[in-house]
Amino acid sequence: MRKTGRGHDARGGAGERCEDTPHGCEIEELFHVLGKTYVLDILHIVTQEGAGPQRFVELQSRLDMSPNTLSDRLKDLVKAGLLSRTSYNEIPPRVDYEATPKALDLQPVFESLAAWAARHTLRPEARAAEVPVAVAP
Amino acid sequence: MRKTGRGHDARGGAGERCEDTPHGCEIEELFHVLGKTYVLDILHIVTQEGAGPQRFVELQSRLDMSPNTLSDRLKDLVKAGLLSRTSYNEIPPRVDYEATPKALDLQPVFESLAAWAARHTLRPEARAAEVPVAVAP
Repeated sequence: MRKTGRGHDARGGAGERCEDTPHGCEIEELFHVLGKTYVLDILHIVTQEGAGPQRFVELQSRLDMSPNTLSDRLKDLVKAGLLSRTSYNEIPPRVDYEATPKALDLQPVFESLAAWAARHTLRPEARAAEVPVAVAP
Repeated sequence: MRKTGRGHDARGGAGERCEDTPHGCEIEELFHVLGKTYVLDILHIVTQEGAGPQRFVELQSRLDMSPNTLSDRLKDLVKAGLLSRTSYNEIPPRVDYEATPKALDLQPVFESLAAWAARHTLRPEARAAEVPVAVAP
């Protein structure tokens, strides 16, 4: 499914550089998991203080994303050990997703990201207002 | 090009939640930029102490990614104001990319990510070794 050359096989092979730096492979794998649309958004929600279990429909409505993409991302995060999934034998069926301790340990990352966002913006319209226009004399 | 419902127009519209939290829209936009394959990897390289300008071919060989994807990501990052691009009138043509001060200010984020990676792993093979297998008595 991935268009790029990177993958578990490629990274695990000989000559890969990730093993040459401390925790390089762990960092690379973390970037790989976080580098998909909406993963940071999902983890930001579930790792917030007192977030607790989140239902699929709540996440979908909050993130305004397609159910298929959300389902894919949640599966990836469960597989990575960052979310735990609990299904309840109810009618209608209920499924909850909750941050694991490993995911909660990403809180300092989100604090750093929020601190950055308090100092900067990437929004083109806001940046246009920031940048002074050079005027010829 | 994006398959999901999120986009500048959707986010700028009425009823969006990002405006309800402090710097919520800046955080969302940052997640949007970072949430693409290889963006974290690229920013990690260019924001390292003393990294300096990086040539396209060096980045491509270091990241083992397709030139088309790298080109797309670099364009996005220049547009977001996170990279500066300098082209030199040489033969063969040379193009350098360097982290802007705004990107260098992401260093605490990468420090947090590296600290997390020093404590945890997402690599399935390493995780399999971590998890004790339950044995029936």
